[in-house]
Amino acid sequence: MSLVVVGSVAYDGVETLHGRVERMLGGSCTYVALAASHFTKVGVVAVVGEDFCQQDVDLLTGHGIDVEGLERAPGKTFFWSGAYSADMNDRTTLRTDLNVFADFNPKLPPSYRHQSYLFLGNIQPALQRSVRAQMPGVRLTGGDTMNYWIRETRDELLATLKEWDCLLVNDSEARQLSGEHNLRRAANVILGMGPHTLVIKRGEYGAILFRRDRHFVAPGYLLDDVFDPTGAGDCFAGGFFGYLAGCGLDLKDAKTDLQDLHRAVIYGSVMGSFCCEKFGVDRFRTLTRAEIDGRFQEFKDFTGF
Amino acid sequence: MSLVVVGSVAYDGVETLHGRVERMLGGSCTYVALAASHFTKVGVVAVVGEDFCQQDVDLLTGHGIDVEGLERAPGKTFFWSGAYSADMNDRTTLRTDLNVFADFNPKLPPSYRHQSYLFLGNIQPALQRSVRAQMPGVRLTGGDTMNYWIRETRDELLATLKEWDCLLVNDSEARQLSGEHNLRRAANVILGMGPHTLVIKRGEYGAILFRRDRHFVAPGYLLDDVFDPTGAGDCFAGGFFGYLAGCGLDLKDAKTDLQDLHRAVIYGSVMGSFCCEKFGVDRFRTLTRAEIDGRFQEFKDFTGF
Repeated sequence: MSLVVVGSVAYDGVETLHGRVERMLGGSCTYVALAASHFTKVGVVAVVGEDFCQQDVDLLTGHGIDVEGLERAPGKTFFWSGAYSADMNDRTTLRTDLNVFADFNPKLPPSYRHQSYLFLGNIQPALQRSVRAQMPGVRLTGGDTMNYWIRETRDELLATLKEWDCLLVNDSEARQLSGEHNLRRAANVILGMGPHTLVIKRGEYGAILFRRDRHFVAPGYLLDDVFDPTGAGDCFAGGFFGYLAGCGLDLKDAKTDLQDLHRAVIYGSVMGSFCCEKFGVDRFRTLTRAEIDGRFQEFKDFTGF
Repeated sequence: MSLVVVGSVAYDGVETLHGRVERMLGGSCTYVALAASHFTKVGVVAVVGEDFCQQDVDLLTGHGIDVEGLERAPGKTFFWSGAYSADMNDRTTLRTDLNVFADFNPKLPPSYRHQSYLFLGNIQPALQRSVRAQMPGVRLTGGDTMNYWIRETRDELLATLKEWDCLLVNDSEARQLSGEHNLRRAANVILGMGPHTLVIKRGEYGAILFRRDRHFVAPGYLLDDVFDPTGAGDCFAGGFFGYLAGCGLDLKDAKTDLQDLHRAVIYGSVMGSFCCEKFGVDRFRTLTRAEIDGRFQEFKDFTGF
């Protein structure tokens, strides 16, 4: 194992133009871990309730994911449901039952504490910070956040970000966090908050990686059909961070091959695109490394000049 | 001369976050021609009124643009004014005075009729068709259109498109013309209407070139400031089509180097990005080929992996 992923493991209900699923495996930690598992060994830190199915545990372990950090608590698993607009660009939350997730206080198993890579999914910034403190020797820390924490717990979030190498957010979050509308200016403000690397995700339009002295732009993959975009941003994070961990890259090192960093963004885009092809985590039940590398090559073909 | 550009030469009034200009040179033909003039010899076909300034003619001829097809008619030059929203993604038309443009009936000077490349800016489809008919030996015909013609003169537009090699439209026009929301599906429908090459412009998100068997995606250039996006789409068209004409490319030929086609999309993106840096056509008063090639190289650096 090399990458520790912290976040939510949940059940989701999702409604899109293409249909409706009442209850299926979801959660940021689940999506990040499944995507990253194609590139590196992953261990998860999350909490589920007594209703969590063995077959969902099996999906994770079937991907070689270590579940020692998957705590089972009395009560029910976090449940979220939402409905997407016809163009998939907006979604309405129908229900959020935090259940056992309300008291989530992540504690890393001893075997996780000396790992090199840490990805902190979208949870309360103070909890993200406490996890970071449990891994004093970590080489690369990344994570994401959301509009709620930016608005409600800004100071806590800023203290947390100070210790991160890499932040991944979407464009509206980047604008909210920085107070700048222009993404180039927004990136400069955020890179002054601690992280030396920033990825701004733009949904169907792709993603941009920013560092102090350069940026890299990856377009979105053009799908014939988007079945369900839930988890696509998390799968981007999993592909991006999983690839970095799998290569043993240290972004602080000036000798880091920047082409490798660019390739990480493309692998993130590849994983995000696969995620949208079926409901929930279904695409990951059959996805192979050959398919992943095939789509990576497609990106080369449709962006090269 | 190798490229004939037909469209509007106008005066514009523009208001953006960065200021307001009451009256300055504008029009689709002007922007396309100025951008294309960096890559090939250009001749324009348009109509202006008695109020059209000599210094604006001089800007065109100073770029080596042939103005034999620039007709001067009794009356005033086409005037348009508009105001942009703070994020520059929406604009409101404040005034449209067609003036001499209302009776525009483009007639090509004899020296234009045997040229090889024709770009038809956004005018009434029947007029675009009549110009095409005046150049029976043309090798490559491209053009754009807009929501008004798609809605109001659909049959006329479809008859016009049948004779084109290449259509350039923005994403909402592509959706409206095809009846498909998904861009990949929209492109397939449009490629069945006649053109073998389609470019869908996505504003700040770049552009996608579609052919039957492949596509190419160019991201937008990240500007620190967008001063005035007026004409950016036309400058894209000018860079794209000007580069093709400059290389003497024939897109019907199966041996066409597809890398050249991709480079044409990047040169289009480069020209569109320069256009936004100053009000109106001002950036073109000083722009050099070295700056253009420098930005082309930047595109290579921030997209390569």
